[in-house]
Amino acid sequence: MLIVMKKAATPAEIDNVCKVVQSLNLESHPMPGAQRTAICITGNKGSVTKDNFSNLPGVKDVIRVSKPYKLVSRETKIEDTTFKVGDVTIGKDFAVIAGPCSVEEESITLRIAEKLKAHGINLFRAGAFKPRTGPYSFQGLGEQGLEILAKVKQQLGLSIVTEVIDIEKIEMVAEVADVLQVGTRNMANTSLLKKLSKINKPVLLKRGMSATLDEYLQAAEYIMLGGNYQVILCERGIRTFNDHCRNTLDIAAIPTLQERTHLPIFADPSHAAGRTDLVAPLSLACVAAGAQGLLLEAHDDAANAYSDGQQAFHPDNLYNLQQKIINVREGLCLTT
Amino acid sequence: MLIVMKKAATPAEIDNVCKVVQSLNLESHPMPGAQRTAICITGNKGSVTKDNFSNLPGVKDVIRVSKPYKLVSRETKIEDTTFKVGDVTIGKDFAVIAGPCSVEEESITLRIAEKLKAHGINLFRAGAFKPRTGPYSFQGLGEQGLEILAKVKQQLGLSIVTEVIDIEKIEMVAEVADVLQVGTRNMANTSLLKKLSKINKPVLLKRGMSATLDEYLQAAEYIMLGGNYQVILCERGIRTFNDHCRNTLDIAAIPTLQERTHLPIFADPSHAAGRTDLVAPLSLACVAAGAQGLLLEAHDDAANAYSDGQQAFHPDNLYNLQQKIINVREGLCLTT
Amino acid sequence: MLIVMKKAATPAEIDNVCKVVQSLNLESHPMPGAQRTAICITGNKGSVTKDNFSNLPGVKDVIRVSKPYKLVSRETKIEDTTFKVGDVTIGKDFAVIAGPCSVEEESITLRIAEKLKAHGINLFRAGAFKPRTGPYSFQGLGEQGLEILAKVKQQLGLSIVTEVIDIEKIEMVAEVADVLQVGTRNMANTSLLKKLSKINKPVLLKRGMSATLDEYLQAAEYIMLGGNYQVILCERGIRTFNDHCRNTLDIAAIPTLQERTHLPIFADPSHAAGRTDLVAPLSLACVAAGAQGLLLEAHDDAANAYSDGQQAFHPDNLYNLQQKIINVREGLCLTT
Amino acid sequence: MLIVMKKAATPAEIDNVCKVVQSLNLESHPMPGAQRTAICITGNKGSVTKDNFSNLPGVKDVIRVSKPYKLVSRETKIEDTTFKVGDVTIGKDFAVIAGPCSVEEESITLRIAEKLKAHGINLFRAGAFKPRTGPYSFQGLGEQGLEILAKVKQQLGLSIVTEVIDIEKIEMVAEVADVLQVGTRNMANTSLLKKLSKINKPVLLKRGMSATLDEYLQAAEYIMLGGNYQVILCERGIRTFNDHCRNTLDIAAIPTLQERTHLPIFADPSHAAGRTDLVAPLSLACVAAGAQGLLLEAHDDAANAYSDGQQAFHPDNLYNLQQKIINVREGLCLTT
Repeated sequence: MLIVMKKAATPAEIDNVCKVVQSLNLESHPMPGAQRTAICITGNKGSVTKDNFSNLPGVKDVIRVSKPYKLVSRETKIEDTTFKVGDVTIGKDFAVIAGPCSVEEESITLRIAEKLKAHGINLFRAGAFKPRTGPYSFQGLGEQGLEILAKVKQQLGLSIVTEVIDIEKIEMVAEVADVLQVGTRNMANTSLLKKLSKINKPVLLKRGMSATLDEYLQAAEYIMLGGNYQVILCERGIRTFNDHCRNTLDIAAIPTLQERTHLPIFADPSHAAGRTDLVAPLSLACVAAGAQGLLLEAHDDAANAYSDGQQAFHPDNLYNLQQKIINVREGLCLTT
Repeated sequence: MLIVMKKAATPAEIDNVCKVVQSLNLESHPMPGAQRTAICITGNKGSVTKDNFSNLPGVKDVIRVSKPYKLVSRETKIEDTTFKVGDVTIGKDFAVIAGPCSVEEESITLRIAEKLKAHGINLFRAGAFKPRTGPYSFQGLGEQGLEILAKVKQQLGLSIVTEVIDIEKIEMVAEVADVLQVGTRNMANTSLLKKLSKINKPVLLKRGMSATLDEYLQAAEYIMLGGNYQVILCERGIRTFNDHCRNTLDIAAIPTLQERTHLPIFADPSHAAGRTDLVAPLSLACVAAGAQGLLLEAHDDAANAYSDGQQAFHPDNLYNLQQKIINVREGLCLTT
Repeated sequence: MLIVMKKAATPAEIDNVCKVVQSLNLESHPMPGAQRTAICITGNKGSVTKDNFSNLPGVKDVIRVSKPYKLVSRETKIEDTTFKVGDVTIGKDFAVIAGPCSVEEESITLRIAEKLKAHGINLFRAGAFKPRTGPYSFQGLGEQGLEILAKVKQQLGLSIVTEVIDIEKIEMVAEVADVLQVGTRNMANTSLLKKLSKINKPVLLKRGMSATLDEYLQAAEYIMLGGNYQVILCERGIRTFNDHCRNTLDIAAIPTLQERTHLPIFADPSHAAGRTDLVAPLSLACVAAGAQGLLLEAHDDAANAYSDGQQAFHPDNLYNLQQKIINVREGLCLTT
Repeated sequence: MLIVMKKAATPAEIDNVCKVVQSLNLESHPMPGAQRTAICITGNKGSVTKDNFSNLPGVKDVIRVSKPYKLVSRETKIEDTTFKVGDVTIGKDFAVIAGPCSVEEESITLRIAEKLKAHGINLFRAGAFKPRTGPYSFQGLGEQGLEILAKVKQQLGLSIVTEVIDIEKIEMVAEVADVLQVGTRNMANTSLLKKLSKINKPVLLKRGMSATLDEYLQAAEYIMLGGNYQVILCERGIRTFNDHCRNTLDIAAIPTLQERTHLPIFADPSHAAGRTDLVAPLSLACVAAGAQGLLLEAHDDAANAYSDGQQAFHPDNLYNLQQKIINVREGLCLTT
């Protein structure tokens, strides 16, 4: 249930509504916006009705939310969610997160990070803990990888985006990471999502490779429901019969998600493509479809990458890609 | 097998190679290009080898083509295929083909066509023969629909793109149509493809909803092999588990097809989306990914459309969309 | 709309209802059954209501059919549809249709047919016209293939099941064939379906490789609506991401179709599997799930088969398979 | 790499080979069988070759294993893996694991368990920790659920199969469970798999809903590689475009897995079907395809089940189903 407050409602009125909600043994989630504050109620098993709230001071409307997700919904919050990671305002500035698939040895990782920084990248991604399909594949450098990421952060001032695959290591990863990434294999790992809902760090939640958008939004709801409202969604391709790319980038997911949720929508063309030559056209397609950021696997020596070299984008090609991204984004804004 | 002629090869030398090919009971398909002429050989069961041709005058190279398609392949022809439909050069000019799903009664059809023309549309699409899922759905106006399309052509000077679903009616449709469309359900209807290979009209061949790109290119090869080289390919979404759109637009198919074939690549965002609100963002994504044209379902009274109204794009919104398309296409071209 | 007649309704009463239906410019399709006759009405655009029929003599009930298929529906006809092909009662006797993918040269085809007959096979399948993915693959022996099938019929007394891919050749194929097969690529070829609805021969309609069951049943409705009530449905695997078999046999389609339609349900484990070693276990699974017949690709020299040798079942293994089929079918019938 | 020992190889010879392996900083996994012992080597980065082992006493052959899984492979162990759970020998006896989706309140859970026991069920399944799509769905009774399962075990002597979704709770669950279940959402949760590889309890690992069989076998390899050799695989349906059932039961996975691995293969028709009426035909199809056990959701009051009532099988129908299972299994064994 959603209680929409009048534009002129006072903080005291909002506070009062929350108290009434709590007195009914329900949880209240106030979502302030430019036009209005909405208070989302969770925990309701059907015993509470509109009448409990519609006459309280400052209340404009009470709406039943029929969808299985509430806090992530556009109904609850009309404005795009934005938050800062370093100097980048996620959800407002267009954000390119780039870096190698895995953290590699210190000198290589720093070298790549420097090249990316030289092309204006502020958000560096690389995995210290890798959830690989098989046990004989490289599983990531682990703690040592986190230390290398810490150096990238200190020496170059880049913000760090890195994956967490294990509830026991969330705090360790969170010490270095500015954004905690949840990979496609863990989208429905509800234990992990519940723990991340209690962490005060943004979470980049990738779409599961066979998740519907409703399932995906419910996974995000797990994180918001626990109190962590800084969630980035990321389309990364779904599994289909296609054999010409690693996954099928579901481009329509981008505008559809934007309609259903206020959370920022990113895309990962690298994992969708699985082939370097597709990364640029898919990136531009995502931008044209409305994506608010990209997650790119980048490496300057793809042949020797620890993992996923076949889809790595060379930093030297970033200048052209970023120029085109700027052009396409400008091209979408018509002035009359 | 592909015989690559020297740039300086004379018409007589090319002709001579073709005669040698024919003397071996094989078929020769000369493909002229700006840089070279290549002669594709079909019908070879393995008895003929490089040695039969490599020493003929004017021959530069003889290449084995390992793929199951040959004439459609980029190996055979490096330059993009282009051809005229009315004043539009398909494969070079960006082309928007628009119109209602079905041909409707004369006054409605003309009214929509006029509105589209006013927005710069030169290629009008509408189906007279509709391959509907069930027999109780509207099956199209048939011959009467063709007559209405003939009037659109005469009165407004628009080129006509319309579907053919039946080998017995190809000639009847071809009298009115400037481009013959093969729908997704008939992509693998090899009888239809073989007949269309003998017609002197461009064919717009939609991708089957569960066809791989190699299967798709082989369907196009049926048309080229019979002698019809004017083929347009059109990505229109594939069938997946997704429930948020009618089909899953496979955006990566666009650059991948462009790498594999010289044929022009279009996209149909309307059937992929199945929802009007997705048509614009998907159109722009296709453009950004490199599509050379779009196939749009357009109607000015979607609520009363004979079919597929839920995905119809209003002509009044075309101005903005076309403006953005121009901007995005310009944005992809960097000047240094 | 469905008019259910009383059990005691006379032929004159049934005839009278049909006349009333026709007087309203609608079509009537009487479906006699052991318990009742039902008269299915098609062509109704909503103007006709229950009241037009419910008081006519002999009428028990008038039911709205909300599904997009009517004649194929269990609602319309409760009893399983059965019909004779040679000595086999399709829909009642368990039927194994076997033979090579393509008709091969006369001596080979007769040799295989003899071996199959020796194992009790009465229904012989082989394609004279092959709808191949690419134009360079063997396209079938064509008319010559039909002549060879005619010899199999004359010399061995086997009934012939063979594919028709072309509306112009339906009559030619129907002269030899006892059952006309429509392949997966042509399930939605509505021109072909409409012509087959006017032929007095059973049609075996394979499921399209990405068709939902509702789409499949509507394809069958096309055939029944034109007057051909002898339709066999055949599950043959759908296209998915799976890479361990050619198609994914949708075993749940068998009981689901049996719930929705009175038509006989067969399965084609050969095309689902794409590998000989899977043919026996999939065949038995289909039997256990309730299939009323199988379509098997069989060859005694798979290595030299003209097509699809990798999935051919050797006739020598038929004895064991048929024994197990009998056992499994018996095992499903519990006596109390 | 796989070292195949001679049939007559002595324990000392086997031990000696293992020591040589360890001296090269590799791990040795001896897999005893009726015909031979094979010693699988893991950790080899390519530096070790056949020559290191082929002349050691008792060694018959040294084989390179090219697949990404080794310990789970039939190459490594020819005989079916079997192990005891209570009185049932998994992999040899046909095993039906049944019970409600969620553990419900004590009296209900005991009542259902009693009814199942009365029908010969020895293995009881129910989830105390439920990995639900959304946070507002019932998440299971948690620890209280485990206590109820402990009572089922004590009072009725049934073995307990229950899901573990959280590395922190593995030990708590393992105190009650005889078999630890990993659900489809966690198949690729490598942190969980690694912890389960160190537990001395059988693991029932469900196939991920979009996992290929090679990915599935690699997930099982994680468990075996850590030292837990008691793994049950379970096909439970994959995600496809189908809309007539919850998931598409991939019946061909059963014989294909049996060819590739020695591990026991079960099937879960309940989650594949999503509808009670399909559970029996799918169960029988799985048996006919060679499954060695079934996982059934069973409830005697489906309308009031805490979760997944729409697919619950009534215990009263178990007698008939089990009778048919016995018949089908007997029917597959031909005596000559």
